[in-house]
Amino acid sequence: VTERLVVVGGDAGGMTAASQARRRVPDAAELEIVAFERGEFTSYSACGIPYFVGDVVHEYEDLVARSPSEHRQRGIDARTRHEVLGIDLDRGTVRVRDLTGGGEDDHPFDQLVLGTGAVPVRPKLDGINAGGVFGVQTLADGIAVRRAVDDGKPARAVVVGSGYVGLEMAEAMVQRGVDVTLVEVFEQPMHTLDLDMGALVADALRAVGVELYLGEPATGFETTGGRVSAVVTEQRTLPCDLVLLGLGVEPDSALAAEAGIGVGETGGIRTDETMRTTADGIWAAGDCVETWHRVSHRPVAIALGTHANKQGRVVGINVTGGEATFPGVIGTAVTKVCAYEVARTGLTEREAAEVGIDAVATTIEATTRAGYFPGAEAIKVKLVAEGGTGRLLGGQIVGQEGAAKRVDVLAAAVWNGMTAEELVGLDVGYAPPFSPLWDPVLVAARKLTDLVGS
Amino acid sequence: VTERLVVVGGDAGGMTAASQARRRVPDAAELEIVAFERGEFTSYSACGIPYFVGDVVHEYEDLVARSPSEHRQRGIDARTRHEVLGIDLDRGTVRVRDLTGGGEDDHPFDQLVLGTGAVPVRPKLDGINAGGVFGVQTLADGIAVRRAVDDGKPARAVVVGSGYVGLEMAEAMVQRGVDVTLVEVFEQPMHTLDLDMGALVADALRAVGVELYLGEPATGFETTGGRVSAVVTEQRTLPCDLVLLGLGVEPDSALAAEAGIGVGETGGIRTDETMRTTADGIWAAGDCVETWHRVSHRPVAIALGTHANKQGRVVGINVTGGEATFPGVIGTAVTKVCAYEVARTGLTEREAAEVGIDAVATTIEATTRAGYFPGAEAIKVKLVAEGGTGRLLGGQIVGQEGAAKRVDVLAAAVWNGMTAEELVGLDVGYAPPFSPLWDPVLVAARKLTDLVGS
Repeated sequence: VTERLVVVGGDAGGMTAASQARRRVPDAAELEIVAFERGEFTSYSACGIPYFVGDVVHEYEDLVARSPSEHRQRGIDARTRHEVLGIDLDRGTVRVRDLTGGGEDDHPFDQLVLGTGAVPVRPKLDGINAGGVFGVQTLADGIAVRRAVDDGKPARAVVVGSGYVGLEMAEAMVQRGVDVTLVEVFEQPMHTLDLDMGALVADALRAVGVELYLGEPATGFETTGGRVSAVVTEQRTLPCDLVLLGLGVEPDSALAAEAGIGVGETGGIRTDETMRTTADGIWAAGDCVETWHRVSHRPVAIALGTHANKQGRVVGINVTGGEATFPGVIGTAVTKVCAYEVARTGLTEREAAEVGIDAVATTIEATTRAGYFPGAEAIKVKLVAEGGTGRLLGGQIVGQEGAAKRVDVLAAAVWNGMTAEELVGLDVGYAPPFSPLWDPVLVAARKLTDLVGS
Repeated sequence: VTERLVVVGGDAGGMTAASQARRRVPDAAELEIVAFERGEFTSYSACGIPYFVGDVVHEYEDLVARSPSEHRQRGIDARTRHEVLGIDLDRGTVRVRDLTGGGEDDHPFDQLVLGTGAVPVRPKLDGINAGGVFGVQTLADGIAVRRAVDDGKPARAVVVGSGYVGLEMAEAMVQRGVDVTLVEVFEQPMHTLDLDMGALVADALRAVGVELYLGEPATGFETTGGRVSAVVTEQRTLPCDLVLLGLGVEPDSALAAEAGIGVGETGGIRTDETMRTTADGIWAAGDCVETWHRVSHRPVAIALGTHANKQGRVVGINVTGGEATFPGVIGTAVTKVCAYEVARTGLTEREAAEVGIDAVATTIEATTRAGYFPGAEAIKVKLVAEGGTGRLLGGQIVGQEGAAKRVDVLAAAVWNGMTAEELVGLDVGYAPPFSPLWDPVLVAARKLTDLVGS
């Protein structure tokens, strides 16, 4: 008999699971795979949306890795404009509405993969649903913003919040010639960095002309004829033609919760390390799940395509009888603000304090290449380690070209529980076009060993 | 009483040791530090020499990190043009000749640091000592080559051998408008890569106009009036105005050997992990030592400024009563051939076979950024793992901008004994300007897991 795998959600988590399963079981008579997606698109790069809005990437089609018809050619019955309304665990069915006008139906499954993704945080403020206020998560959101810029020729945009997408949208607006103001409730942009490193991001934003109001929450929006005309904070009113919400996203776990599938304190669907939910035969992957932070030992919900893909791969292997596990995350992230690159991994000093770890930290300044080599750019590296043991907890990097991807070696060091002293000894690559004699990450580690007191 | 630390050799290994010791013991009445250097320069970037020859770096002074007078200002009695002729272990003295005409003297030491460096390999071929044949190791060598290019306006140069310095000198000649031919005994340039990855380097060299003769050892040199006029191989005679030896370097351990200090099979001075030689109170650091390869478990002699500095730091700590160890190396190296970046770490497939490890390997092609992002360049990654266990043994990378420093995360993975499957799960940084959704190193790891069979 044919086993039936149903996937809810047509982007990274769900479709990677579907593709991996199909690769392992090519025969559709053995395994039927149906994927329901309420939007029009499948398997696109959500992380690329700001670059499409900024016209760095010219066509939204470039962001689509695999269209619905390409999935169908590969033996996955991808049905767009189909919304899953509910899951009946006892009967093993999902209730699906055909948004093109085809009505509702129940579809049976033997195994179910939830890849419902995330939704932008939208606080309940006056005017937040007015025209011209955009949350940016799906490709459809990105196309709408791009059209608003192309056709509306806004003179001023306000970005509310400074998560990664917020900052990337601020850059996109700068590139489109729109005056940009950023309003942020915290005293720094990018709250996933420590204050001192966040200050460097603030400098980078100001350097490209972004006006910043920090420590200043948006309290509401003024509207004119149903369209936004200003962002209001406690201190001021900022007239604008366009508002971009950059307050982050939250897991879209409503469908799971309504079906009685476990949802964690983060709002993400709970899974074990095989990505199985609390219900038998029900799996989840991507922005809708909560995962395990290997350093803080806390559950976290981090919306990022790379996690979604890895989790989807694990699901695809496990639903077809293989054995794979997702090992958790350490919060690695990189982004770019015009010429400035920003990266982080592991715990910040603040996060270490929040989880009760006694930490020491140091920040160094260096260059991305040998100081005498053309193109050497400034880079600052902050490292955080556990006091006493010197075990690395995390790192943050802000710098120009060549800075950010150095976070990967820090990620590997944190992941493997290396100490600062061990990192000093690590055999990383050196040649003048690529690094000073002591790579900046080693310089930071060397300085940190003094503080640890070995 | 004042303790006396004598350093032999004024570059990376010795002077880092001296500087670190001085930092820990600032008082010269407690610790006197004297450093003898037979050349004119101290603490320069030998790795930067090809870029000075290529006029990427315009002044040789830019390569000097710390001049003799700067060392003296910091309390290190740096004496250039002073050659150490011998070591008397019983009396605890070194015999020193003042090359400026001041005669010879014995200088006592309580502790001695050997930082005698390396010398270019110069096979005993007819004509190898003719004018116009240059080995390149010291800054003086580099200045001599630069002068030969500036003043001699050579039309054709032949590079003999294709180690890192050979390739970098080939690039330098291309940049100076000199026609370059490269003669290499092996069937590939850069024998520290596997043949398939070396072939990519050959392509890169040809793409910038370098003529290659592979598998063709130089057998001698023709000369005219004491100057080189051609390189002779078994197959042909290559007329030229300039020859650059790129056959690698070997540890300069003669002084140590003559004093009865242990020298290993690699020709490098043997030390323990504190960098102490076989003789009490005698330490060594830099290109003159042999060290431990953490993957092959064999002694190796790898001339590289970054190792020299780390070893010098360890010596400087240990000679002043601290405790530090050098953990060994895994053979990480990066270089650049015009727009092409080349990197390696750990063991190649060939090296794994040589040390009797059953290995599997895979090579993947990807891009350095998201495929749709402007500036995405081609990158090839080869990974080698132990069969059965999947433990990573090494990696090789050839690609364009942004490719080479990805070797660092591979180095950290190999260093920590991660398996290919563990690397697939590693939380490395992702954003479209910096990486595809799956970083190329993860793509390679993912493909390798299929071969390991987990």
